[in-house]
This record gives sequence, C-alpha cells and structure tokens, in this order.
Amino acid sequence: MYDSLKGFRDVYPAEMAAYRQVIDEIETTARQYGFREITTPALEATEMYVDKSGEEIVEELYHFEDKGGRDVALTPELTPTVARMVVAKQQELSKPIKWVSTRPFWRYEQVQQGRFREFHQTNIDIFGSSEPTADAEILAVATDMLTGLGLSADDFDFRVSHRDILTGLLESFEADVDTQDAIRVVDKRAKIDRDEYVEGLTDAGLSLDQAEQFDEWLRAGDDDLDALAEMSGSEQVADAVANLEAVLAAAEDFGVREYCTISLTTARGFDYYTGVVFECFDSTGEVSRAVFGGGRYDDLIEGFGGEPTPAVGFAPGVMNSTLPLLLQRAGVWPEEAVSTDYYVLQVGDTRPVAARIARELRESGHVVEADVSDRSFGAQMGYADSINAETVVIVGENDLENDEVTVKDMASGEQTTAPVDAFPGDHERPTYGDFA
Amino acid sequence: MYDSLKGFRDVYPAEMAAYRQVIDEIETTARQYGFREITTPALEATEMYVDKSGEEIVEELYHFEDKGGRDVALTPELTPTVARMVVAKQQELSKPIKWVSTRPFWRYEQVQQGRFREFHQTNIDIFGSSEPTADAEILAVATDMLTGLGLSADDFDFRVSHRDILTGLLESFEADVDTQDAIRVVDKRAKIDRDEYVEGLTDAGLSLDQAEQFDEWLRAGDDDLDALAEMSGSEQVADAVANLEAVLAAAEDFGVREYCTISLTTARGFDYYTGVVFECFDSTGEVSRAVFGGGRYDDLIEGFGGEPTPAVGFAPGVMNSTLPLLLQRAGVWPEEAVSTDYYVLQVGDTRPVAARIARELRESGHVVEADVSDRSFGAQMGYADSINAETVVIVGENDLENDEVTVKDMASGEQTTAPVDAFPGDHERPTYGDFA
Repeated sequence: MYDSLKGFRDVYPAEMAAYRQVIDEIETTARQYGFREITTPALEATEMYVDKSGEEIVEELYHFEDKGGRDVALTPELTPTVARMVVAKQQELSKPIKWVSTRPFWRYEQVQQGRFREFHQTNIDIFGSSEPTADAEILAVATDMLTGLGLSADDFDFRVSHRDILTGLLESFEADVDTQDAIRVVDKRAKIDRDEYVEGLTDAGLSLDQAEQFDEWLRAGDDDLDALAEMSGSEQVADAVANLEAVLAAAEDFGVREYCTISLTTARGFDYYTGVVFECFDSTGEVSRAVFGGGRYDDLIEGFGGEPTPAVGFAPGVMNSTLPLLLQRAGVWPEEAVSTDYYVLQVGDTRPVAARIARELRESGHVVEADVSDRSFGAQMGYADSINAETVVIVGENDLENDEVTVKDMASGEQTTAPVDAFPGDHERPTYGDFA
Repeated sequence: MYDSLKGFRDVYPAEMAAYRQVIDEIETTARQYGFREITTPALEATEMYVDKSGEEIVEELYHFEDKGGRDVALTPELTPTVARMVVAKQQELSKPIKWVSTRPFWRYEQVQQGRFREFHQTNIDIFGSSEPTADAEILAVATDMLTGLGLSADDFDFRVSHRDILTGLLESFEADVDTQDAIRVVDKRAKIDRDEYVEGLTDAGLSLDQAEQFDEWLRAGDDDLDALAEMSGSEQVADAVANLEAVLAAAEDFGVREYCTISLTTARGFDYYTGVVFECFDSTGEVSRAVFGGGRYDDLIEGFGGEPTPAVGFAPGVMNSTLPLLLQRAGVWPEEAVSTDYYVLQVGDTRPVAARIARELRESGHVVEADVSDRSFGAQMGYADSINAETVVIVGENDLENDEVTVKDMASGEQTTAPVDAFPGDHERPTYGDFA
C-alpha cells in the first residue's frame, strides 16, 4: 500500500463537492469582471525565482535538474510566470490585460492547519493600468467573491497599506536603511515579539529611536493618513497617501469601502510589491493567519525585460489553504456531499428502456446514474441512497408490461407510476409530483 | 527575458476560451453520468511507478529527490494515484466508485505535433464493477463527449479489443511466451515495419510460424470473433470473446455501438490492462496517432494492496494533446476569441453611476468590463471592440444631466438613449433593441 506524500492531499468527491462550489463562485465572479482565463506551466526555470523573488521563497522551492540539465522548479506562485507571459506578447496584448487562473502551486514548507505543500490558488491580475480604479477593482472583485460565498462585513476585513508610505517613511530618516529588509520585518510584526521586531528594524539600518518613531508613525497613520503625511514631511509619503485615498474613494464608488481598514503595518512578504498592498483577515481573529493578500507590483514586468507595465493583483488560496478555515468559522462552508438528480433502477431485462430514459434525462442537463453492476433491487436502492439521488425511476419488467415505470421520491419515500412513453416526455425535470 | 521550458505551453485567453469550451463539454458529460470530481496530488513517490508501471513510462518520469530525501515524481498519469486512493478508503466508499478529474500530467518525451511534456487529461474511471455494462458506460460517456463537441460517426472510431483474447491466443501456443512483451509489440504494430514486428514477437518467445499465425488470427478475429474463438480452441479466448460481445451489446442499448469497430491489434501500452481496451482514432486518418484510449484494469487495485476491485476507465487529453487536432481537422474547434456582454464606458466624472450599472449587470450573471485606466472615449471604445463587447453602455456627464445613458450595439453600430434609472432595471439582458 502506498501513501500520499506529506503535505499533499487526496480530495475525495464529498469534500470536493464543497470545494467545487467555492471555486465556481470565485471563478464566476472573476469572469463577470472580465478577467480572462489563462493556463500556465507547472515548471519554470529556477533562475526566474532566484533572480527575481525574495530569498524566503527560493528556500522553499521544489527544484531539480531535469534530464536536459536545466535547473527547473515547481512553480511556488504565479506572478513571475504571468510577468514572463506579458513580456512575451506585450505588443499584441490590448491593455488592460485582465487574467485569471486556478491551479496548484508547491512550496516545501512546514505543514500546519490550513497550510500544505501543495495548495490551489486563483490568481487575478490587471496589467497596464496605474490608476487607483484598477486597485479598487481588485478590492471589489475580492469582496464580491467573499460575499458571494456567504461572508458579510462582520466576517472579514481587508487590511490595506501602501508600500510607498513605508518606503517613504524609512527614507525620511537620516540613516542608511535597507528598505526591503525593513519591510520584511514589518511583514512579520504580528508573528514576532517586540524585541525581535525592533532588533529587525535596527538590523535593517534604523537607530533604536528611529525604529520606535517609525512604528509610532505606522500606528498613527492608521487613524489619520493626512496627519502622517504632514508629520513625515516626505513628498513620497504625501503622494502615496493621496494614492491610497484615491483607491479608497474608488472602492467607495464600487460599494466595497466598508470592507477595507487602513493598516500600515500590513506589508506583504514579496519584494516585488510597490504600491497598495492588502491582506484579508478573519474579523473575529479565530483564523489567525492572513486568508490571502495582494497588491500593486509596477516594476516587475520591466524587471523581466518588458516595457514598463503597471500591475495589480491578488490570489486567494481556494483549496488546501486558509480560505476554507474562514468559511468554516463563519458557518458558510458548503455541505460536503455529492448530489444526484436521478437514479434509473433496472429490474430484469429492461436495459434498452432504462438506457433511453437515462439518456433523455441527461440531455435535459441532469445528473443521472444507472446500474452498471447487475445488482438486486435492494442493492441498487441502497446505492441510490448513498449518492443522494432525489428521484429513483424504477424500470421493471412487470411495470413495462403495462407500459409504465415507477417514480419514487427519495426524500418522502412516496412513489407512483408514470406512462413509460411520457417519461421524461416533455417534462424538463420530472418528479413524483408530476405523476401522482 | 525568460522563456517557458521546452514542451510546456503558455495558453493565452483567446486560445483558452476554445479549450474552456472543450473542457466544459467533457466535464459536464462526465458529471451527467454521475462521475464525481476528485483532486489529486501532482507529486507521488517514484517507487509507485517503478513498482507498478511498464518500464517505458518510468524512463519518461520527471523525478527527483525532495528536501526530505524521498524520490518523488511528477505524475505521468492518474491511474496509479486513483488506485492508491481507492485502496486507502476501500471500506467507506460505496461501489461503484465513479470518479472524474481534469489536470495536467508530465512526461519527459520528444516534443511533436499534439504532444507536449505537460498536457491536460480528463480521467474517468469506474471501480467495483466487472460487468460489461460498466465497460459499455465508459464507451457511452466517451462517445457523448465527442458528439457533444460536434463530432459525428464519420469523424471518429473507437477501435475495441480485449486483452484476454490476445493473452489467450498467445498462451494457446506451445511456447514460453512473455505475454506482456508480446502485447507491447502488438501495441506498436502500426508504428513499426513488418520485420520489426515479427522480430518483436519472436523475441517475446513465439516461433516465426507462431508469430505469423498469431497475426493472422488477430486480423481474422476483427471479422468474426466467434470463428476466432473456435479456431483457437482456447477457453480463455472464448470467454473473452463472449465478454467483448456482451460489452458491444450493452453499447448497442446505450446507442453507441455504431462508433465501435473490433480491432484486435489495438493493445494499449500500459501493462495493467486486463479486459476490454479501446483507442479513439480519426476516421479520416489525417490525425494518425490515437486520440486517446482506455480499458479495463481489474488487477491493479489488488496489486496496490487492496481488496480485489475491478476497474475500467479512459482519459482523453483535453489540452496540449491530440484531441484538439481531431476537432480542428473536423472543423468543430471552437472559435479562439474572448467574449464580453457589456462594456460600461465612462465619460467625465460618472464613476458612481457607471459602477452601479456594472454591478447590477454582473448580478444578472453577465460579463461586464468598465474603465480601470482613466482613458478617453476613443481608447475605451477601441478596447471594448478588442474584447468583443456586444453592447457598450455609455455613461456620460451630458447624458446624465438628462438622466439618460446611451446604449450602443457593437455589431450594427446603432445606438439609442435609455433612462438611467431603467438601466438595467427589470431587463435581464438589456440591449439596444429594448430602448430603440
């Protein structure tokens, strides 16, 4: 007997039925906003990640030398791949480019609740617009996905920040600060203790006083961005504040401002972010990690050799990830059960009629099973129950002598006969009630 | 600038729109037959393939040692994984188990037309029935998928064979034959020349005369199975012939017999097949390779440490595979173009109204884009055209002063005004015609 690998999950039908509802809702919402589906490779050259991502991600790569001697990696995230694809066709693609895809990614990390080595994300990105409207559309589509799944403003919260506010504040100090290092420390703020946090900031080049000042500013900014811009005296901060306010104004027009909270200590881990960033959190705090996040990354396409192309996006983990924990906490996780419209039960040598009925019901779009195991009435009925069949159509030799079939409603147990020629006939979804 | 790896394709939205139609048709058909979606890992322990599959597949594996020192492989096919999953939960799963999934697989092989190193397959399997009805249901769902895609009986052909006929014939010779080796030679028959074929059979243990006799029997059997059973004098062959005939009789009841041709030289490459096997071919021969195939594999679950569990299945390659070549040859490949129901065009400071209209149209299920780039009327109209918008709703400052918006039909170029409060109002899918 073989086992699955640690951190890799087998998802069986009942659980998958719940995931399918979640994924369909998320993909449908993206499609309705005009995001277009793409399909992307599971393997990329390792150098693409080594060159462009933060070190943290590189350590977590599943990478190896292929039979052609290339170092290749299982994709840990989609952003470098879509950046590569935009660069490859930048002349022919009309802007804005709006892409969506759902697929697995792989990271060799500690397995814990809601975190696996293989996980599925839906990636949603807009390329080619630097306007606040684009950032706000990302917040709007993210909100619609979550409310479409049954969550309300009481359940979740987008903590919104701006990389240029962080960078601008750091650069306003008279110090030789490694801003990327400092931002990575801010990203870890909630997960480390105060001493470690301050030490991280001083390691990045701030003095102890500057580190304290910086943190004070971040917390003050959450309450009053304009005052922060003033206090810092930095033009970069003032511009970033104006940009963040414009994004939130557009979010207001899109009806999603109420889901957003300004939270300057929300930094995001990846180095490539440039402007607005956000993370989705469980409002009750019961799910303690960020559910997902996203933001603006205006420099990545140019860094990949393309024309300067602004970009903004996000990526909810839809499977083997944190989102299901939030949906479960909020009581809106879909039922884990398969569903079946009809089971066509054969008794005796009635296969041609049973097959005709099954075929016609399928042609009307229904989920229909029929016996493939030559089993008894009782065994078939038990199986029909196990697949949650709503209606069982019994095609028996005796009934057929009277040109009838029996229609059984599985919830009530009631049954009646129906003329075989009228089943399904003109009925779009024939049930017990149509013939009783 | 980075490149994708050889044999790995980037699929952009227009092409993906065509693939999406194909995949949706195939998945919907499987779902209507009661196949239930599962999701499975991309990595498995390499030993699972080394132990159980033919050597041919092992040579083609992308495999490597992970950071935990395990030799792991990118899954080259789904069957060993689903066998593992059936064994893991065999007590709790009600039979028949009917599973479907669509996902990528990876094989390090020669890249050629319709063959890539990463390709997407939909796998459809039934576990727990040894009845001919199960084999026939597999042929029926495969047929419905192809006819649902617009193909007719003139376009494709299922070449149906039976492993036990091949095995029985081989074992009826007074010779020490390696039947698996011989069957692998039969599988290659169409791709190698006559001398190589005969040499392969003699290498497997047949004499030259026996090899000729064997081949003659295979060809004679295509015309008259019963005569072949008689000629061979083998009980195993007679049983297998009866089984194959029962499968075809059930296929007749299911309305798909006409798509099946008996073709005993169709053997399938994998060693795990046991009973009926089949391959789908282009009837015109223009696409020369098998489009996909499947069959019965009754011993695999037991070989994986489970209770004896009969199984039958097939796996059309839905993307970066041969099926698109057949659909293109037959002229039923879907149009490679994105589609958009509405573009909401803003002129001036009209975002709140434009956002309200876009939101309401999306709530009715439509695909709706709106400006995220703060662009001119002309640039927006050009973009709306590039995404094939059917209707453009122009929300302009001047119109709004009269409480109106403009509705433009993009095919005809005609436009009219509509009361802003009645757009979309009660209209499920408001168009130019509703207001002209």
